[in-house]
Amino acid sequence: MKTEEIIAIPETHRDLLDKRGIAHLATVGPDGLPHSSAMWYQWDGEHLLFSTLKSRQEYQNLRTNPCLAVSIVDPDSPYRLLQVGGIAVLAEEPHGELIGALVRKYVGLGVSHWDEPGVERVTLRLKVLRVTCAG
Amino acid sequence: MKTEEIIAIPETHRDLLDKRGIAHLATVGPDGLPHSSAMWYQWDGEHLLFSTLKSRQEYQNLRTNPCLAVSIVDPDSPYRLLQVGGIAVLAEEPHGELIGALVRKYVGLGVSHWDEPGVERVTLRLKVLRVTCAG
Repeated sequence: MKTEEIIAIPETHRDLLDKRGIAHLATVGPDGLPHSSAMWYQWDGEHLLFSTLKSRQEYQNLRTNPCLAVSIVDPDSPYRLLQVGGIAVLAEEPHGELIGALVRKYVGLGVSHWDEPGVERVTLRLKVLRVTCAG
Repeated sequence: MKTEEIIAIPETHRDLLDKRGIAHLATVGPDGLPHSSAMWYQWDGEHLLFSTLKSRQEYQNLRTNPCLAVSIVDPDSPYRLLQVGGIAVLAEEPHGELIGALVRKYVGLGVSHWDEPGVERVTLRLKVLRVTCAG
């Protein structure tokens, strides 16, 4: 599988951004250990967006080190791959706007309250600084 | 998705080890940046095994920092997830034994020479120290 380093997500792989793939997020903890999380994603035309919880490891890690790398394999073609890296910006998501959009995208359901009361949800917005494609 | 930290891969999720899933490897570069790679895997009963090239980022990263985290989503059930972390041991793979086994597992083909001449192939052997499961 030949890869090429480029600086914007190319037309050839933009279709992956709208697919119901699984993004795997690599983060680094305060102890220096890597962590990999599997997550739903959405593309807003400029950023990759993820919705997580304050209780989860990727949030704990990104709070102290915002560097984030992501790999997404095309769910319809296992040799097509998109890898991106950049800086994650975290924002409170008290009304669950993004998780609602993700549930519509991935499950096809409209939900008004996805989380149980007391859950603290956060949006991760990835500014893409590096892109590598394959396939 | 509820997760639970445990110290051995539980019976409930061992089937993933023999499936043709995609493992996403989180590593940390000498510059401190995370990296995520999508890879085939094999389980030898004790370690997760991966076959890569010296030219690839995950090898470059693991050579200086052997800490490795991996996430695998069940290809047959997207809510089932296995996340493992530990230390990767690197070994030369001059005869392509592991990549041959992986091509048999994933593609169903027997190949004697998967790589072009001059390619330097390496086996990553992950000693699992942490496990988290979901689904």
